[in-house]
Amino acid sequence: VRDGRADPDDAEAFLRQFHRERPEAGPVEPRLRQALAEIADTGTYTHTRDELVFGARVAWRNAGRCLGRLYWQSLVVRDLRHVSSAEQIAAACFDHLRRGHNGGRVRPLVSVFAPDRPGRPGPRGRNGQLVSYAGVRRRVGDPKTADTTALARRLGWPDPVGEFTVLPLIVQEHPALRPRWFRLPEDTVHEVAITHPRLAWFAELGLRWHAVPAVSHLALEVGGVCYPSAPQNGWYMVTEIGARNLGDTGRYDLLPEVARRLGLDTAAEDSLWRDRALVELNVAVLHSFRRAGVTMADHHTEARRFLTHIEREERAGRAVPADWSWLVPPISGSATAVFHRYYDPVPGALRPAFVARLPW
Amino acid sequence: VRDGRADPDDAEAFLRQFHRERPEAGPVEPRLRQALAEIADTGTYTHTRDELVFGARVAWRNAGRCLGRLYWQSLVVRDLRHVSSAEQIAAACFDHLRRGHNGGRVRPLVSVFAPDRPGRPGPRGRNGQLVSYAGVRRRVGDPKTADTTALARRLGWPDPVGEFTVLPLIVQEHPALRPRWFRLPEDTVHEVAITHPRLAWFAELGLRWHAVPAVSHLALEVGGVCYPSAPQNGWYMVTEIGARNLGDTGRYDLLPEVARRLGLDTAAEDSLWRDRALVELNVAVLHSFRRAGVTMADHHTEARRFLTHIEREERAGRAVPADWSWLVPPISGSATAVFHRYYDPVPGALRPAFVARLPW
Ligand code: HEM
Ligand code: HEM
Repeated sequence: VRDGRADPDDAEAFLRQFHRERPEAGPVEPRLRQALAEIADTGTYTHTRDELVFGARVAWRNAGRCLGRLYWQSLVVRDLRHVSSAEQIAAACFDHLRRGHNGGRVRPLVSVFAPDRPGRPGPRGRNGQLVSYAGVRRRVGDPKTADTTALARRLGWPDPVGEFTVLPLIVQEHPALRPRWFRLPEDTVHEVAITHPRLAWFAELGLRWHAVPAVSHLALEVGGVCYPSAPQNGWYMVTEIGARNLGDTGRYDLLPEVARRLGLDTAAEDSLWRDRALVELNVAVLHSFRRAGVTMADHHTEARRFLTHIEREERAGRAVPADWSWLVPPISGSATAVFHRYYDPVPGALRPAFVARLPW
Repeated sequence: VRDGRADPDDAEAFLRQFHRERPEAGPVEPRLRQALAEIADTGTYTHTRDELVFGARVAWRNAGRCLGRLYWQSLVVRDLRHVSSAEQIAAACFDHLRRGHNGGRVRPLVSVFAPDRPGRPGPRGRNGQLVSYAGVRRRVGDPKTADTTALARRLGWPDPVGEFTVLPLIVQEHPALRPRWFRLPEDTVHEVAITHPRLAWFAELGLRWHAVPAVSHLALEVGGVCYPSAPQNGWYMVTEIGARNLGDTGRYDLLPEVARRLGLDTAAEDSLWRDRALVELNVAVLHSFRRAGVTMADHHTEARRFLTHIEREERAGRAVPADWSWLVPPISGSATAVFHRYYDPVPGALRPAFVARLPW
């Protein structure tokens, strides 16, 4: 995929797959002829709504790093291909967040915006996730968003950055246009204050996290067509927040603080203070989400679901490409069911797929 | 390496590497001519003592799954190529264990027994480790050794199997000869009773583990020569025992029991009882080894050492082939320094190396 041209071979492979897996769509030949003619004519082609839905779901099914694929068939796909202005995109993303949150019963959802077309690249959101916390490296907030925070600043975002300040959404409509920023309306960001089921001091740490992980830095590639903005969300798995976001030394780096509060000696490794602090953080995060009525998976359950997914896929005659190093959770790896086996490799050319987005 | 013949190309590559990395050994050409002539004549060649030591050390350096490689240069290599009878091998392995234990200051050590030669395969120890616990699947002991335990039984080993019964050493001198078993003398097996620094009931679980991990299921391959028996030991890293050996559901499977004793509800995942039990098991194992005065590394320290190893190797102009999924510890992965980076791939043909041993 380059310059917005759809590769006819990719288009054909996808259309054949769609008609093979969805026999109710009828024979592939007429559609194939039509699509190839459209590509010859315009450089690209337009997916039917069913093709788009199928393509997005299979892109999830193909996500080798994703542990949560059991429910790939129920992904809700929002067809927003007609949406391309920055304001409209921001508004549609806000709506995505409301629908994804769904009153706490988080719903897997993808919003597909305008594709790249020859001479007309699609719009690009510039945030890694729709909701994220701003950060200034080694100073405050989430170091992960330091670059995006700096970009927001350059674009004129004036808000002071605290430990958990929600970054504005930054949308760029076209390479020639300046990106624009939009504050997230209050009803789009649901946050959970982190408390601990037994340790009262945990609340004093003032930790919080937002409810819906809506990944927006990947493009959706289907049948030779690139949708550069296709934010998607599932629900959080506890370790994403409790181990990585709050625990990583390159993120909120909270293990030393939690360990000190636990009364552990952090000068030596013998107490395994990092391991203890990690468990308490994850217990607290899981407890807090449950209490707030927000869907969250623990890593043991999600790992078992993934093995069920493999069984189902194998019964359907399909391999399950998977990347061990992403599937195995960042804590208690060997205590989860996914640790003790090998997986089918993830072919680099596997499509449909969520892929790293090329810069303009 | 097959039929005990040394591949001349492998021999040449190794001898060139040895002379390149050890310039004090002089020019390679005379030695190379001599070795190739010996291969032409006999099908194989004999390493000098220095070549053997270098080969074994580089095999450790090349072990992509090993986190403990910082000290590869100090590996002590026992040249036991003249040893090939079953009794002699057993006696030499017992001596290996005494020297490896070294009064608790565990010393990395490899014992290299007779190589495969054309028409004369070298002897093979049949145990996965020199010290291991017998097991009967789903009944008692360590399920990992079920096959070896069954073999010992067939060979007439009469001892009753308890939870921690040391398996005899099983040595096969030649494919045509019946393997023989040898009970390990008391002074070769040092065991550590597992207690917990704060939880008194831990001692009641009656857990123990032996002090020296002496891996004996791999062959050492150097310059086209295969040494089928080359048991080696380092010191234990706490997670090998606390997470894997005692915790894995396919091993001693102790997480449910530990969690119950901790008063946790094991019916739901919300308490993260597996994660808690894992931490307590590892705290107990580390504490017990320290108290017994036996060298043991924690996974945080060993991970930092590995990054030092990478720095040193890169300064020496060498890549560090490594397998992420083996390096990252089985608990608290993302809290260790080795989690957050990529590694050079491990070429399948990398030699010298410890490799899976072919059956006779
Ligand atoms: C339903 C609940 C879901 C769960 C519990 C889940 C779980 C996970 C986890 C644990 C990861 C690894 C994250 C990391 O280590 O940074 C991941 C990655 C990923 N997931 Fe899922 N997921 C879910 C839904 C989805 C959905 C709906 C999609 C797409 C439609 C998706 C696509 C992906 C992709 C593309 C990655 C790799 C991201 C990257 O490369 O940065 N997941 N998922
Ligand atoms: C000095 C202390 C040492 C430490 C802390 C250490 C640590 C480790 C660890 C944690 C593993 C992974 C084990 C597993 O997950 O099953 C490993 C594997 C390995 N180590 Fe080391 N090691 C040490 C010494 C040695 C020595 C002396 C050698 C050889 C001379 C060696 C060669 C290997 C090999 C070949 C493997 C892979 C084993 C397999 O494939 O089953 N290590 N090491």
